[in-house]
Amino acid sequence: MAQVRTEKDLLGEKQIPADAYYGVQTLRALENFQVSGVKTNFYPDYVKAYAIVKLAAARANGEVGRMKKDRLAAIEKACQAVMDGKYHDQFLTDLYQGGAGTSANMNANEVLANIALEMMGKKKGEYQYIEPHDDLNMGQSTNDVYPTAIHIALILHNDKVMKEAQLLAQSFHKKGDQFNHLLKMGRTEGQDAVPMTLGQEFHAFGYQLDAAIDAMRKSEAYLYEVNMGATAIGTGLTATPGYAEKCSAQLAKITGKPIHTSKDLIAATSSMQAFVMYSSSIKNLAVTLSKISSDLIFLATGPRTGIFEINLPALQPGSSIMPGKVNPVMPELMNQICFKAIGNDVTVTFASQDGLLQLNAYEPVVAVAIMESQALFYKSMPLFRKNCIDGITANEKVMQKYIERSVGIVTALNPVLGYEKTTELAKEALEKDKGILELIREKKLLTEDQIKKLLDPAAMTGQQKK
Amino acid sequence: MAQVRTEKDLLGEKQIPADAYYGVQTLRALENFQVSGVKTNFYPDYVKAYAIVKLAAARANGEVGRMKKDRLAAIEKACQAVMDGKYHDQFLTDLYQGGAGTSANMNANEVLANIALEMMGKKKGEYQYIEPHDDLNMGQSTNDVYPTAIHIALILHNDKVMKEAQLLAQSFHKKGDQFNHLLKMGRTEGQDAVPMTLGQEFHAFGYQLDAAIDAMRKSEAYLYEVNMGATAIGTGLTATPGYAEKCSAQLAKITGKPIHTSKDLIAATSSMQAFVMYSSSIKNLAVTLSKISSDLIFLATGPRTGIFEINLPALQPGSSIMPGKVNPVMPELMNQICFKAIGNDVTVTFASQDGLLQLNAYEPVVAVAIMESQALFYKSMPLFRKNCIDGITANEKVMQKYIERSVGIVTALNPVLGYEKTTELAKEALEKDKGILELIREKKLLTEDQIKKLLDPAAMTGQQKK
Amino acid sequence: MAQVRTEKDLLGEKQIPADAYYGVQTLRALENFQVSGVKTNFYPDYVKAYAIVKLAAARANGEVGRMKKDRLAAIEKACQAVMDGKYHDQFLTDLYQGGAGTSANMNANEVLANIALEMMGKKKGEYQYIEPHDDLNMGQSTNDVYPTAIHIALILHNDKVMKEAQLLAQSFHKKGDQFNHLLKMGRTEGQDAVPMTLGQEFHAFGYQLDAAIDAMRKSEAYLYEVNMGATAIGTGLTATPGYAEKCSAQLAKITGKPIHTSKDLIAATSSMQAFVMYSSSIKNLAVTLSKISSDLIFLATGPRTGIFEINLPALQPGSSIMPGKVNPVMPELMNQICFKAIGNDVTVTFASQDGLLQLNAYEPVVAVAIMESQALFYKSMPLFRKNCIDGITANEKVMQKYIERSVGIVTALNPVLGYEKTTELAKEALEKDKGILELIREKKLLTEDQIKKLLDPAAMTGQQKK
Amino acid sequence: MAQVRTEKDLLGEKQIPADAYYGVQTLRALENFQVSGVKTNFYPDYVKAYAIVKLAAARANGEVGRMKKDRLAAIEKACQAVMDGKYHDQFLTDLYQGGAGTSANMNANEVLANIALEMMGKKKGEYQYIEPHDDLNMGQSTNDVYPTAIHIALILHNDKVMKEAQLLAQSFHKKGDQFNHLLKMGRTEGQDAVPMTLGQEFHAFGYQLDAAIDAMRKSEAYLYEVNMGATAIGTGLTATPGYAEKCSAQLAKITGKPIHTSKDLIAATSSMQAFVMYSSSIKNLAVTLSKISSDLIFLATGPRTGIFEINLPALQPGSSIMPGKVNPVMPELMNQICFKAIGNDVTVTFASQDGLLQLNAYEPVVAVAIMESQALFYKSMPLFRKNCIDGITANEKVMQKYIERSVGIVTALNPVLGYEKTTELAKEALEKDKGILELIREKKLLTEDQIKKLLDPAAMTGQQKK
Repeated sequence: MAQVRTEKDLLGEKQIPADAYYGVQTLRALENFQVSGVKTNFYPDYVKAYAIVKLAAARANGEVGRMKKDRLAAIEKACQAVMDGKYHDQFLTDLYQGGAGTSANMNANEVLANIALEMMGKKKGEYQYIEPHDDLNMGQSTNDVYPTAIHIALILHNDKVMKEAQLLAQSFHKKGDQFNHLLKMGRTEGQDAVPMTLGQEFHAFGYQLDAAIDAMRKSEAYLYEVNMGATAIGTGLTATPGYAEKCSAQLAKITGKPIHTSKDLIAATSSMQAFVMYSSSIKNLAVTLSKISSDLIFLATGPRTGIFEINLPALQPGSSIMPGKVNPVMPELMNQICFKAIGNDVTVTFASQDGLLQLNAYEPVVAVAIMESQALFYKSMPLFRKNCIDGITANEKVMQKYIERSVGIVTALNPVLGYEKTTELAKEALEKDKGILELIREKKLLTEDQIKKLLDPAAMTGQQKK
Repeated sequence: MAQVRTEKDLLGEKQIPADAYYGVQTLRALENFQVSGVKTNFYPDYVKAYAIVKLAAARANGEVGRMKKDRLAAIEKACQAVMDGKYHDQFLTDLYQGGAGTSANMNANEVLANIALEMMGKKKGEYQYIEPHDDLNMGQSTNDVYPTAIHIALILHNDKVMKEAQLLAQSFHKKGDQFNHLLKMGRTEGQDAVPMTLGQEFHAFGYQLDAAIDAMRKSEAYLYEVNMGATAIGTGLTATPGYAEKCSAQLAKITGKPIHTSKDLIAATSSMQAFVMYSSSIKNLAVTLSKISSDLIFLATGPRTGIFEINLPALQPGSSIMPGKVNPVMPELMNQICFKAIGNDVTVTFASQDGLLQLNAYEPVVAVAIMESQALFYKSMPLFRKNCIDGITANEKVMQKYIERSVGIVTALNPVLGYEKTTELAKEALEKDKGILELIREKKLLTEDQIKKLLDPAAMTGQQKK
Repeated sequence: MAQVRTEKDLLGEKQIPADAYYGVQTLRALENFQVSGVKTNFYPDYVKAYAIVKLAAARANGEVGRMKKDRLAAIEKACQAVMDGKYHDQFLTDLYQGGAGTSANMNANEVLANIALEMMGKKKGEYQYIEPHDDLNMGQSTNDVYPTAIHIALILHNDKVMKEAQLLAQSFHKKGDQFNHLLKMGRTEGQDAVPMTLGQEFHAFGYQLDAAIDAMRKSEAYLYEVNMGATAIGTGLTATPGYAEKCSAQLAKITGKPIHTSKDLIAATSSMQAFVMYSSSIKNLAVTLSKISSDLIFLATGPRTGIFEINLPALQPGSSIMPGKVNPVMPELMNQICFKAIGNDVTVTFASQDGLLQLNAYEPVVAVAIMESQALFYKSMPLFRKNCIDGITANEKVMQKYIERSVGIVTALNPVLGYEKTTELAKEALEKDKGILELIREKKLLTEDQIKKLLDPAAMTGQQKK
Repeated sequence: MAQVRTEKDLLGEKQIPADAYYGVQTLRALENFQVSGVKTNFYPDYVKAYAIVKLAAARANGEVGRMKKDRLAAIEKACQAVMDGKYHDQFLTDLYQGGAGTSANMNANEVLANIALEMMGKKKGEYQYIEPHDDLNMGQSTNDVYPTAIHIALILHNDKVMKEAQLLAQSFHKKGDQFNHLLKMGRTEGQDAVPMTLGQEFHAFGYQLDAAIDAMRKSEAYLYEVNMGATAIGTGLTATPGYAEKCSAQLAKITGKPIHTSKDLIAATSSMQAFVMYSSSIKNLAVTLSKISSDLIFLATGPRTGIFEINLPALQPGSSIMPGKVNPVMPELMNQICFKAIGNDVTVTFASQDGLLQLNAYEPVVAVAIMESQALFYKSMPLFRKNCIDGITANEKVMQKYIERSVGIVTALNPVLGYEKTTELAKEALEKDKGILELIREKKLLTEDQIKKLLDPAAMTGQQKK
């Protein structure tokens, strides 16, 4: 009994394993590109994106009267099955590939064609009933399918990144509420500045994340513009008039996102600005999370020779040599993911700036870079949240001690005493190792009422204004 | 007669040149930071931005009843004079500075105080009437003034970048109209693809720029959120309640932009996301212009051994050794500016990711990097437009010859003949060095009517659909 | 019967699968860090590197009289087994980890301890005989073991990268020999320049790779300096005097590379310059291969509307829509790997610039980034070589046609006619669409003898000098 | 009377100011490229480099018998004058330029020709006696002159960078000696680790710089290989046999550096690896100095709520609002310069990876980026050294207090008590807020002799071994 079937293409015939849903072009890609070991199905949302695009295209071709109903019905079932998580083991092309994604697109065409054939009661390879090019790729080209599938995959991933970022932001805000009463010294340039509360500090972490999420949301919008209907170079050759807009409408319907057709399909096919702008928002998340992580590491330095205003949960022994040491492993993990994501953004920049004329053949590495960053973030943020942020505790006494010793509160007296006078006070306090209040009282510079009013914690930390 | 006056600060007394509007702190900065040779006044809009911020702050302090009217009047005059381009020679601190911009802010405070003093009929240095800290910096800190001034400067610069980018986009679109009838082969991955018009190609360049401009416009919005009123760390210590919002309102009024106060001033003071996101849109412009420039260089290769579909204007002899050579100097210039801007974006990323706790002390280099990129773009884009794009001519015969020889038009026959059949045709044409049409007629695969309809230029280039 | 064993650490007890060679700390790491899905054993050389480091350390501890002979013997066997490729399935920590590599080091300590126990006839977990900390980590710390293991892994990988790069360079040189007689026009700035041979062009590709290989070799030397013996911060606390140098000597003996102890172990423990410098040489390889790849894509543009001086082998149908199209998939693949490697170098830069005081906790992501780039290169270069370079053929007629039409040969007449005169000739040739020789003969500017001598191909291409 | 002279080139005639030494092509460049405002003469060493290259080329042409003696004598005088710092005001082309440096090279040719003419007693513009192309550019092309001049300029700058880096390293080592007796706690991952001395910490800073200097020295060697003699594309067309090697020998003689001719001039003309590798060493300096700067900022945090182990000299009032605040302005300045230099390295990477075939036209921006970084470093390092490092003082009591409280010294007991036992001790000390020694004595775990030996400062800090 035959365990293979024979398929052919421009370059000749190949034997395909009989149980494979993929076909000859996928097989060539498997032979040509064994590079990273990371395949399309490493990211289930990416496989799903192909099924979504092919479903939308088939339906749009149906609407313009080009796709026959029985074929459409079979293709719809095939796409739905893949969207439901089935057949993912057939999406096998390495994420790194030359040919601007032709292999990935043909892999999808071949697998979906063969699933559809089986759904019709036919055998795999009976392409006279449903053909990978003519039916699955009808009115399409890799040059519109591939970037659109990446857009969809990034949007699906972005939902996950944003969801985890929101949960993380909420954790910071919860800590902000919990620590709202704890007075501490703010620091600028590492030097004692003026008072704030630990709650304000954590709310600010939360707000920075809120802002980064807002930027991701806005940048996601760049991905809504797709070039389905462009076919090879944007002129729409072989696509039926009206198909492009119907395809976008289908994509919008399936994904629930306002996906629409680019105003200039030629520009859209050659330009990768949507990736550049979206990737920048991921870079911005990296910049934000990295600064927050480093701040947490700083605040938790100690236990006896550091700042030690907060405790991060102990997750593992911190050292193979230093007994009792517990390290800030979670913010360290986050920082490293941020550094990788920042590097990936540079990769996106390089790949997008290059690329010749009507197509940028370097889209695959753009997809690799952005999807890697997205996955690293949506996988690590819940660890960071649950294993670190949610368990942070405050060392109230330490903060109290700092605030009592600081001269920074002298700033609150500027409006009454003037900058020059308060500067002298600060200088004297540091030189004589005294407290500011002590000096003020010694010198009778203020009444007790003034002191009370000016140095009221709520006033000093701006909280009375809210 | 005294040619100096004496001023003092925390660190002691210094002699100031009698005719200098700046004071002791500026002098210290001049002594401490002689690094790049590029000073605040290298960018007039940046000087202007300080005057705008100080004017808004003074007026807001007037509105909340803290700034006396006569002082306000004098400060308003001083700020207006600087906004009008006067006294710029007094803004002298090196753009590179430690201290998170304290020197630049104090330079502005000192100069404006002394101008205001003269406006009041007083002498420079008579700070009992108007004092740099207590009046010009009233309710302010470098930590809100400095980032806000940079925001304003970037916004002013962005107007220039966008204006020049729009003019450049228009030039591309004009060429698009001019070349709209010229049929040529599109190329993907450097290989012959399917037909398009040269006009479509130039319109696509224009549209890519339109999209980059749109992204700049959207990213400018991140700069509208300012932290005036934050003072040292965002708690608003020393600022009068209500001042923050009034200051933003004044900034909005003066600039005509929807500037508003950040919802969380502590977050806004420590985070540099607005710079990251805005800088990313400049990077996106760089990516876009670089791809366009490289495409133009490719299309103009020749004159006898290249693609040579277009001619770029000759601006200078192209070689010190090869007679008659004319090089694509303008797209080369643009590419280099794009590469510098891309590097500057990485600088912004580094500086923004670092920075400790309540303040990021690396804002100066962020300002340096972004302003450098902006200026390079708004100065080079008009050169690129006038000396290159506007003078581009088409080599119609060359394009004609290519299209006649190409087998790429076979793609148009897919919907009728199917992918497999057309593939064989293409292969045969290449092997026998024949034309596609020749083969079709030989083999009688299509009627003349079908040929006419399928290979109609308007149809093939998608132009009948518009 | 128990299918688990119980182990404990600072944070408490955990149940370990009875058949696992790893122990409690590895288990914690598996729980804490499930991020990238890429584990230590994704890179066999990296696992091997741990075995090498532990073997060298054990032997050095033996030499200074601290490690007992029976324990040493068992540990040697365990390390050798892992070096031989066994037990790799036990090296399971995610490459991304907080804690500066403590998890990876403890994973190695635990696995090797349990293998050694079995080699001694003991059971896994009987740590009274051989203990992960006290024996496997004897006189060591993660802070010296981890960076040293990465150094070793990178050196092992670099052998592979260099070997493949050398084979690739040889392929270019072979083509250089094969094409040495084929005259063609050189191009600068995309414009026709002066003649050369295709062989010279390919030899130059080869030489560029030779130079990149030379830079990798030189940069590998930075990795030879290791900090074994530093223990926690470089002061060598708990290490026996003399051990450090003996350990390096063992590493040198095992690897055959001149590995030696850093002169300042404190500096070596906190600084990541060796990684920065080595990574830069990988970036340089990327820059080099990317330029070569883009040049090949340019030379192969066509078949009918491009430069088309060379043919790249056809590996797969180039398009899902355009019949007969064959794309330059291999150089496209290489370019993308280069872009990823360039991004990875930025990641290394970020991670190396950060890191606090006596240790840079971001070494794991440095390892991730560099090892990823190395593997991408050593896996893709043989594909590029075999499937592309080795099969390149030349289109001799095309090159011949270009050279006959070009005016660039006029440059050869400079020394006789002067730059001004030859410039006029070039201009006239272009304007009148004539050949240079034609004009020279018309104008009788040179004798036939002069023409023959000046325009001799060997002379013009500089080949007579060699 | 004429205040202008007339010159012409391929594109036509232009009026040149009579007193200008530059000529028509420089004038075209001034008209075409007014972009950055930074001209060749912004870097005197860069102007000097052109004079050196032209001197070497003229002498080599003399040696091969092509340059006449009287012309050579005049050109030598002209070059020497420029090397001595004269006529720099005539080197006016913007550093940003299209044309791969043709403008800069022609500027040098024209200026040196006219100086030489005057040296011969002729008038400016009398090119029949000495001609910019035929004499000053004899056997040369921009494509060899321009990269070689940049190589020379970078080498001259590198001397300055290395000298300042060495002085800075010495300052760190001096502080290392001065602080050698001051015991303090080392920190890893921000957590208390094991003891060291402040002197060791500063020596390690010094050693890190030593290593960075070593890398710069090694990378400078990449710049020694030059392509003089390549002319347009590396084939040496128009250059006299033997000239290339003689020119390199002259360059070596004039500069005192082992400059030599590339083995493959075609590769050398198209590849920018030397720049990539040299730039990487400047990036490595940036990474190194940035980490050191951030460490200093960390150690100086305070004065009352930070680590405060060291004091940085106060250079200026640190705040426009917070009286008495003094900020770490010098390390902040250094960090920013490092961030700019890191961005510049990315620019170099981009520019080097691009560039088509036989020439990379993006060399100008490579020169801009590297020279900017070099100048920023050699100007800022002396400020950092004199105004910061040399004035650093130690807070001995603070360090003493930390070391007394830390539990990190427990690590020293590992070899005697074992990791598990010491871990319990550490845990107990932290929980009961006790000292390690206190617990050891309570529990009688060690004799006083053992304690003395194990916890001896010299032993713990590894200093007895040296």
